[in-house]
Amino acid sequence: MKVKRSERLIDMTRYLLERPHTLVSLTYFANRYDSAKSSISEDLTIVKKTFKERKTGTLETVPGAAGGVRYIPEIAKEEAKEFVDEMCERLSEANRLLPGGYVYLSDLLGHPQILRQIGKIIASQYLHESIDAVMTVATKGVPIAQAVSSYLNVPFVIVRRDSKITEGSTVSINYVSGSSERVEKMELSKRSLKRGSRVLIVDDFMKGGGTVNGMKSLIEEFEAELVGVTVFAESTFSGDRMIADYTSLLCVDEVDIRDKTIYVKPGNYFKD
Amino acid sequence: MKVKRSERLIDMTRYLLERPHTLVSLTYFANRYDSAKSSISEDLTIVKKTFKERKTGTLETVPGAAGGVRYIPEIAKEEAKEFVDEMCERLSEANRLLPGGYVYLSDLLGHPQILRQIGKIIASQYLHESIDAVMTVATKGVPIAQAVSSYLNVPFVIVRRDSKITEGSTVSINYVSGSSERVEKMELSKRSLKRGSRVLIVDDFMKGGGTVNGMKSLIEEFEAELVGVTVFAESTFSGDRMIADYTSLLCVDEVDIRDKTIYVKPGNYFKD
Repeated sequence: MKVKRSERLIDMTRYLLERPHTLVSLTYFANRYDSAKSSISEDLTIVKKTFKERKTGTLETVPGAAGGVRYIPEIAKEEAKEFVDEMCERLSEANRLLPGGYVYLSDLLGHPQILRQIGKIIASQYLHESIDAVMTVATKGVPIAQAVSSYLNVPFVIVRRDSKITEGSTVSINYVSGSSERVEKMELSKRSLKRGSRVLIVDDFMKGGGTVNGMKSLIEEFEAELVGVTVFAESTFSGDRMIADYTSLLCVDEVDIRDKTIYVKPGNYFKD
Repeated sequence: MKVKRSERLIDMTRYLLERPHTLVSLTYFANRYDSAKSSISEDLTIVKKTFKERKTGTLETVPGAAGGVRYIPEIAKEEAKEFVDEMCERLSEANRLLPGGYVYLSDLLGHPQILRQIGKIIASQYLHESIDAVMTVATKGVPIAQAVSSYLNVPFVIVRRDSKITEGSTVSINYVSGSSERVEKMELSKRSLKRGSRVLIVDDFMKGGGTVNGMKSLIEEFEAELVGVTVFAESTFSGDRMIADYTSLLCVDEVDIRDKTIYVKPGNYFKD
C-alpha cells in the first residue's frame, strides 16, 4: 500500500539516522513505501534541506544507477563548543580531584547523552577521511571508541594490557609509559585488524602519550595505517610528549592538590 | 519563522530518536518551529502512528500542563528473532573456536550495527521497569552495557577486576568464579552508584554465573536493587549454575573441539 509523504519522511529519517555512512538506494525506499522514485527523490530533497538547516549533518546524493543517498552525521562547530565548555565546567568540579592529581571521569564517560556528543564531535573531525577501524585501549577508552564508531559506522578494536583467553592469538608490543617511564606491554587480537586498515586512535585521557605511542607501534606491527589520534582530554605535560600530532577536546591545564582546584580549558580541537 | 510540517516531522523524528525515554513538552516543539501547539499535536499523532506501524517503538503521550511526549525505543519480536538467528549462524563459524572451547566474539561486539540491535533487544525487555543504571564488568561487557544504556537513556557503570588509580575509592568484594572455582576480587568506584539505585546487569557471556553473582553481591554492598540480568550468550553448563534468574539472547549449546564445531541456538529470551 502506498505510504503518505508525511509517514515516508518520518520513517526515512529514522532509517537513515540508524545507518550513518551507508548508501541507501532510491529503489529501496521506493519499494519500502510503494511509491514512485520521483516522489522518493522529492522526499529526500526535503530531508536534505532540513538536515542542513538544523545542522544535523549532510545527506549526500550519489547519482547514477548504483546511486542513492548517504547520511553523514556532523555536529555544528557552535554546538561542539557549547558542549565542550560545559564539560570544562564539569571537569573543574573540586570533588573530581583524586590522589596523585588524577581527575575522576567515569561518571561522564558512562552517560549516553555525553557519549553521543563526544562521538559526534570526534566523528565530525574525520568526515572526509576513509577509516576502517577505531582503536582504543581497555577499559576507559572503550565507551569513546564505541561512540565514535557508531557515528562513523565502522568497527572498533580494543587493545588490552592483560592477556585474555577469549581473544585468541594476539600480537603484543612493549611500550614506554610516558608519565612513569616504565616499560609495559599491550596486545591486540591478531584477527581483529586486517593488513592495510586505516585506523583512528581514540582514548579518554592523554598525559605523556606513551599509551597512544604504544597503539601506534601496534598499528605498524599489523601493517596498518594511522589516520589520526583524538583524545577526550589531555593534561599539560612538563616533559617531552611522545606524540606531536593529536587532537584533544579538553585540556586539564592545572591541578592544584593543596587548594583542590582543577583548571580545565577547551583542547586544541578548536584551534584552527 | 514558521516551519513547514514536512520539515517539522523530519526534525522532530531526529530530536526524539536522539533522546529516548525523555519527556519533551509540546511547548518546546511549538517554540522550536514557531508553530501552534495544535499543529505540533497533529504532527506528533502522525509520528506516533508511523512509529507504531513501522515497529520503531512507542511515542508515549503524557497529558496535562507538565505533559508532552516520550519516545520509548522497542524492537519487534520478529526483528529480534531474525537478528538472533543470524547471530547463531555467525557464532557457529568454526574459526571462532579458541583453545579451551572458548568462542571468539570480539569482532561481533565491536560492530556498531550489531551493538545497536543488541542494545535495542535488551532494552525492549525492560521497557516497563524503572532502571537507574546498567552494570557490567570490564572489558567485554562494556560495549553491551553502553548499547543498552543508550536505548534506556540511563548511565552505565563498569565493575573492574583490577584496581585503577583513576576510579577513586572503591568498594570491593570477593566472589567465586563459577567455572574455575577460584576466589577472585571485583570492585566498583564508590561514587558510581547511589544507594537505592535500581540496577540492570548485562554481560557478554555467562558460563557458571560466578561473575554475575559477584555483581549481585556488589549491588547489595551498595544497598542498591537488582532489576534483572541479561547476557548476550550463555553456554550450557554442566555444574550447578550460581544464577537461576537470567535472560540470554543466545545459547552456545555444544562445542566439539575435535570436530571444530560449535552449536549455537537462541537463548531463553524467546521462551514465553
